Amino acid sequence: MNITVNELAALVGGIVENDDAGNRSNAQIHGAASIADAAEGQITFFGNQKYLPALKACRASAALVPLDFSESISAIQIKVANPSLAFAKILEKFAPAPITFAPGIHPSAVVADDVALGENVSVQPFAVIEPGARIGSGTIIGAHVYVGHGVTLGENCKIHPHVTLREGTLIGARVTIHSGTVVGSDGFGYEFSGGKHVKIPQIGIVQIDDDVEIGANVTIDRARFGRTRIGEGTKIDNLVQIAHNVVIGKHCILVAQVGISGSTRLGNYVTLGGQVGVAGHLEIGDRVMVGAQSGISKNIPTKQLLFGTPAMPLDEFKRIRAYTNRLEKLYERVKKLEELLEKSEQVSGEKGISLPPES
Amino acid sequence: MNITVNELAALVGGIVENDDAGNRSNAQIHGAASIADAAEGQITFFGNQKYLPALKACRASAALVPLDFSESISAIQIKVANPSLAFAKILEKFAPAPITFAPGIHPSAVVADDVALGENVSVQPFAVIEPGARIGSGTIIGAHVYVGHGVTLGENCKIHPHVTLREGTLIGARVTIHSGTVVGSDGFGYEFSGGKHVKIPQIGIVQIDDDVEIGANVTIDRARFGRTRIGEGTKIDNLVQIAHNVVIGKHCILVAQVGISGSTRLGNYVTLGGQVGVAGHLEIGDRVMVGAQSGISKNIPTKQLLFGTPAMPLDEFKRIRAYTNRLEKLYERVKKLEELLEKSEQVSGEKGISLPPES
Amino acid sequence: MNITVNELAALVGGIVENDDAGNRSNAQIHGAASIADAAEGQITFFGNQKYLPALKACRASAALVPLDFSESISAIQIKVANPSLAFAKILEKFAPAPITFAPGIHPSAVVADDVALGENVSVQPFAVIEPGARIGSGTIIGAHVYVGHGVTLGENCKIHPHVTLREGTLIGARVTIHSGTVVGSDGFGYEFSGGKHVKIPQIGIVQIDDDVEIGANVTIDRARFGRTRIGEGTKIDNLVQIAHNVVIGKHCILVAQVGISGSTRLGNYVTLGGQVGVAGHLEIGDRVMVGAQSGISKNIPTKQLLFGTPAMPLDEFKRIRAYTNRLEKLYERVKKLEELLEKSEQVSGEKGISLPPES
Repeated sequence: MNITVNELAALVGGIVENDDAGNRSNAQIHGAASIADAAEGQITFFGNQKYLPALKACRASAALVPLDFSESISAIQIKVANPSLAFAKILEKFAPAPITFAPGIHPSAVVADDVALGENVSVQPFAVIEPGARIGSGTIIGAHVYVGHGVTLGENCKIHPHVTLREGTLIGARVTIHSGTVVGSDGFGYEFSGGKHVKIPQIGIVQIDDDVEIGANVTIDRARFGRTRIGEGTKIDNLVQIAHNVVIGKHCILVAQVGISGSTRLGNYVTLGGQVGVAGHLEIGDRVMVGAQSGISKNIPTKQLLFGTPAMPLDEFKRIRAYTNRLEKLYERVKKLEELLEKSEQVSGEKGISLPPES
Repeated sequence: MNITVNELAALVGGIVENDDAGNRSNAQIHGAASIADAAEGQITFFGNQKYLPALKACRASAALVPLDFSESISAIQIKVANPSLAFAKILEKFAPAPITFAPGIHPSAVVADDVALGENVSVQPFAVIEPGARIGSGTIIGAHVYVGHGVTLGENCKIHPHVTLREGTLIGARVTIHSGTVVGSDGFGYEFSGGKHVKIPQIGIVQIDDDVEIGANVTIDRARFGRTRIGEGTKIDNLVQIAHNVVIGKHCILVAQVGISGSTRLGNYVTLGGQVGVAGHLEIGDRVMVGAQSGISKNIPTKQLLFGTPAMPLDEFKRIRAYTNRLEKLYERVKKLEELLEKSEQVSGEKGISLPPES
Repeated sequence: MNITVNELAALVGGIVENDDAGNRSNAQIHGAASIADAAEGQITFFGNQKYLPALKACRASAALVPLDFSESISAIQIKVANPSLAFAKILEKFAPAPITFAPGIHPSAVVADDVALGENVSVQPFAVIEPGARIGSGTIIGAHVYVGHGVTLGENCKIHPHVTLREGTLIGARVTIHSGTVVGSDGFGYEFSGGKHVKIPQIGIVQIDDDVEIGANVTIDRARFGRTRIGEGTKIDNLVQIAHNVVIGKHCILVAQVGISGSTRLGNYVTLGGQVGVAGHLEIGDRVMVGAQSGISKNIPTKQLLFGTPAMPLDEFKRIRAYTNRLEKLYERVKKLEELLEKSEQVSGEKGISLPPES
């Protein structure tokens, strides 16, 4: 597909700039790519100041730039308020048609007789849907998906291949779950008795609210009793672990490889960076943000910005880190003070105060 | 289902208290829930002092409390030695009947001719069982499970949907493996030669002993040669990585997202907190406990309690952490000493000793 | 199978030593095992000095040892330049025949009509291959594998059971992917707008070059646009997370549970230890090595050896760690200086300088 620069500018509500010769805005653009990859005939976008040298060397024919952009570049510029968002719109224009799955049940799928299927549900090859399940209209059950006994799925969900939804799981509308994710496996609970770990029955369920998206190979355990719950609009990245009875609020962001221990509750709009660990039975307030790899071991009030293991306010972490990194010089200063004092003693002599040996 | 408070007390061997009017113990209870969730007509339990305010506000009609409980609450009390354990019993009473899988081989399953099946084995839809496998009596092979060539499974195992058991894996009796777990994938071993990483054949197997439970999306690699081994009664949480030739003792607890590098050996009753990493070729003694997110880089004698990266005894970690957190004040004290000494020099003058510049 | 010690020595180009009686070299060896496991009639190898006591206690009948080995052991010795490599050769001799999968399409597999299959392709039970896919000669598609629309696989790949390859993924020749791995799930990208996280379309793909091996339950996200790319010869361990638009160079090693955030680029021959996290939009130079559990938050020039969170050069990390661990003594020294100075003041008196209170 080819689109002119002018047409692209119109699409995103942008202003064409530095069109010196007056005719470059009619140039045909055939694709969109990042600054690192874009070639002649393509459009790119500039959203991060650190890529300026790359932009200047970039061979793209056009570039989306911020309104206040004043650098000289070879690409023709389209000025917009938010280049990243505008680029997303243009990408959709150039994108291949998305893969669709026609409604209907593939003949290989094993669907129990009593399953309640909405309209236009798509059940792909080798899916298994156990008795008592209910699937909302427009929902896609991917290949090899396992839908356990009595699972409820709302409308317009996308359950990608190889997802496992264990018995009783409740899922709202417009929920997307990526491949390999397991929802509703047993919580990790044992009583130590007679030299063994004796399993505590895990008889609760998992509830996932509307508009949640869950990445690939995530694990969300069913509650010991009651519900493990993921709040509306929350987005979970790949390989995240959510233990039994955890309650996640609305519109949270959990980056890849986060782990949350049992019965911890997150407020709304919480962001946990990659590989963050949270201990069990904690309360994390609304809008808390935790830096990557940090470890949370106590309750956190709202709006804190934390870092480190155990986590502390970011400012404090940085200050302590700076002091720690300069320790060598502090040791030297103390050494000099000791030497100075020792010499001073030797000169004045009579005071009879001896220095302790350096340890 | 409805059960009276008196009947529940009898079930758990508890004593009904504060039944002032003498007739609340005949009240009908229709469900069990946590303090946070329990409503009228339900029973809850009090097992952690921090939930006392919540208990006082809770609308549950009955509560399991410890024998020495002396607070005033609106719920009728059942006093027991261990409220958590007693609650587990009551939960089972109210629990829905567990999902069962009838014995027999689903017609869609692909089972090799020579597979040895015990009695009452259940093979669910789309399971694949390769030649030479042996499945013990009462074992359930879930939907989409892959059982590789020559795999041996003992009696009464539960292999949940989407588990992969690669060739040669040996599994004892009463082993539970949750969905998405991969047992027996190749160990990660290469020789660097000619500018490339050349694969070292991984021709050993994985052996999992009796009464082990393994969570969801765990990975356990086959040995380079010999056996990667998980000892009897050990419990492994979700997303744990166990490398080739690792040997885990009996009755260990590995919390979610732990990673253990090649050839390391754990003793018995070892507990590793979430996200702990253990380097390769180490010996970890019996009953060692390691705090979440710690990193183990050397051998650990028995019964140590460790924390940090690299891990150290917990007491030491706390002490060093305390000193580190107070560094700002130490810097101030050294600065004051320097100023003091400088002033002192200026007053006494004649000693001619100059202070080093602050660095 | 039985092989004599002499035959084994010839196989690995080794020299038989300490054959005092002159006839032990004709002894029959029936298996190979590690020092910890080897029994009479087996051969072992000695490749790590720390296992010397174990070697001395080992009941193996023969041992591969380095050329300069001079200890006294009961096993007959075969001296070689590299005992580990020599052992690998011997292991292959004793190894069971590897599992093979005959060419052909299992009748249960669902393969779209227009799929282009090379020669001798093996498609195992319950595999799904969507329209437009192309599978190179000699490639094995394992049981339950999902090959999405338009996926291209080169020659002689091994795709183990339960792998998911989402639409458009490009895979070179001789690529091995272990079970449970998900390639091409959506990148984790949202714009925060109107109090919600609005999904940014992820319309790029994943490209995996020749001779890459990927472990079990790994996740590699498709690019927002363009390509997430894994360079030739790179080896990825289990449970690794690779975000959208990440570019990994050639011959890198990513140990288990590593996480790499979006748009970061790794050079060639980079090694990341287990559980390392790398922030987004970074450049990591060639031959950088990062110790386990470290966190990378800025660009790293070539050949650096790093450790810690945030990561720093290993030497620096060790030095700071040593200073930190000795802080208790530094506090004592400062205390003594303060006392000394205070006493000195009291003696000389007239100077009128007062010490600050200890904080």
